[in-house]
Amino acid sequence: MEAMKAREGESATYTNQGTVKVFSKTIEVKTSERTELINVTDEIGSFVEATGVTDGHIQVSVLHTTAGIFINEWQDALLTDMKSIIEKVVPQDMYYKHNDLEFSDCDKSNAHSHLRNIVLGHCLTVPISQSQIVLGRWQTIIFSEFDGPNQRKVFLQVFGI
Amino acid sequence: MEAMKAREGESATYTNQGTVKVFSKTIEVKTSERTELINVTDEIGSFVEATGVTDGHIQVSVLHTTAGIFINEWQDALLTDMKSIIEKVVPQDMYYKHNDLEFSDCDKSNAHSHLRNIVLGHCLTVPISQSQIVLGRWQTIIFSEFDGPNQRKVFLQVFGI
Amino acid sequence: MEAMKAREGESATYTNQGTVKVFSKTIEVKTSERTELINVTDEIGSFVEATGVTDGHIQVSVLHTTAGIFINEWQDALLTDMKSIIEKVVPQDMYYKHNDLEFSDCDKSNAHSHLRNIVLGHCLTVPISQSQIVLGRWQTIIFSEFDGPNQRKVFLQVFGI
Repeated sequence: MEAMKAREGESATYTNQGTVKVFSKTIEVKTSERTELINVTDEIGSFVEATGVTDGHIQVSVLHTTAGIFINEWQDALLTDMKSIIEKVVPQDMYYKHNDLEFSDCDKSNAHSHLRNIVLGHCLTVPISQSQIVLGRWQTIIFSEFDGPNQRKVFLQVFGI
Repeated sequence: MEAMKAREGESATYTNQGTVKVFSKTIEVKTSERTELINVTDEIGSFVEATGVTDGHIQVSVLHTTAGIFINEWQDALLTDMKSIIEKVVPQDMYYKHNDLEFSDCDKSNAHSHLRNIVLGHCLTVPISQSQIVLGRWQTIIFSEFDGPNQRKVFLQVFGI
Repeated sequence: MEAMKAREGESATYTNQGTVKVFSKTIEVKTSERTELINVTDEIGSFVEATGVTDGHIQVSVLHTTAGIFINEWQDALLTDMKSIIEKVVPQDMYYKHNDLEFSDCDKSNAHSHLRNIVLGHCLTVPISQSQIVLGRWQTIIFSEFDGPNQRKVFLQVFGI
């Protein structure tokens, strides 16, 4: 391949190649509140480091339909705002058919928890480059419980060279 | 690499390595209603199985701007709630410039369909581990039509060892 | 592997295998408005092409907590609707604790920018097949600034064979 030149303000292209290795693990996240945000950045970063993978990605998949995962800044005031906007977009106290025992076999009254998972997402792909998980300065990986207290499983798969 | 010890409640790390194989295929999804949810878990799982890939992932990409894909529980009452929340977050009957022939060359009145795709997402990455697609007990892969009836294309790519 | 037969309307399965190559680069996106949508499809497509990777994917990760990325149609009238729906789902003029200097050390009044990133997402995985980035006819990759003017970094990683 010809060398690719970086424009001003852009990095040069970094390249690597080799045999692919994969490392999979299921971690548990214990939650203690109905709606709760938990910083899992360090746990995920440690796993990536332990694998020794240089370049590739980690796939982070919440194995539940009433919890989610996303990336944003970990700041106390902002965490409160996150919970408020989640409540505004998908309110808990609306009529949901899933909560109505005439139509549903689920007695957990957790329709809003399911719908929050749909809006916010249940998985993330985070790149690994030159042995580091690639995150911006303010980015943290935030597990979001929508139906706690609970014990949750998050599947991690590092895939790379 | 040193062995990585699992904490209580966590799985041990499973590892594998080898030559990467890729399998790509475009499937079609026929829809019959304006807004419709279709369970595509089995079709995607069968494709993964047929490839024989042991570890990696399947990338599922809807090739449209007015349909989406997400993961949640497949339960009748909840499916109704999903449609309701989508309508609440991105209402069909609002003024949209895209629907106004003074400003737009599109006469489909489907601005809401586009915007629902943006909020709910058009793609998923689902891990494959030890020859199985990795999904939690209640997780199903749900194709969501926002502008049917239609004939949709979903690109599948299994990538792994 | 046995040949996999395509159903009517479906493509046959395309397969490939080989040594994995990875190409990483950070690009910059300059924005000039508070909320702004920028079409980055060509820049991302060119990078994919320059790598010469045949099959795999490109991971596109915005390295910020107040900007996002998504895929949809690039049409003037619709771009206005996108900004309107973002403002409807996460309004700028609400009380946010993150903007309240009694509780927060951030004086940027950008809580809404953070929350828009959470709802719309900060990353995309786009497949590469037979040397082409796989996008539907109307799909473009749209960088979304929620707190401009700014200079943003987007990490690109092509991973494939």
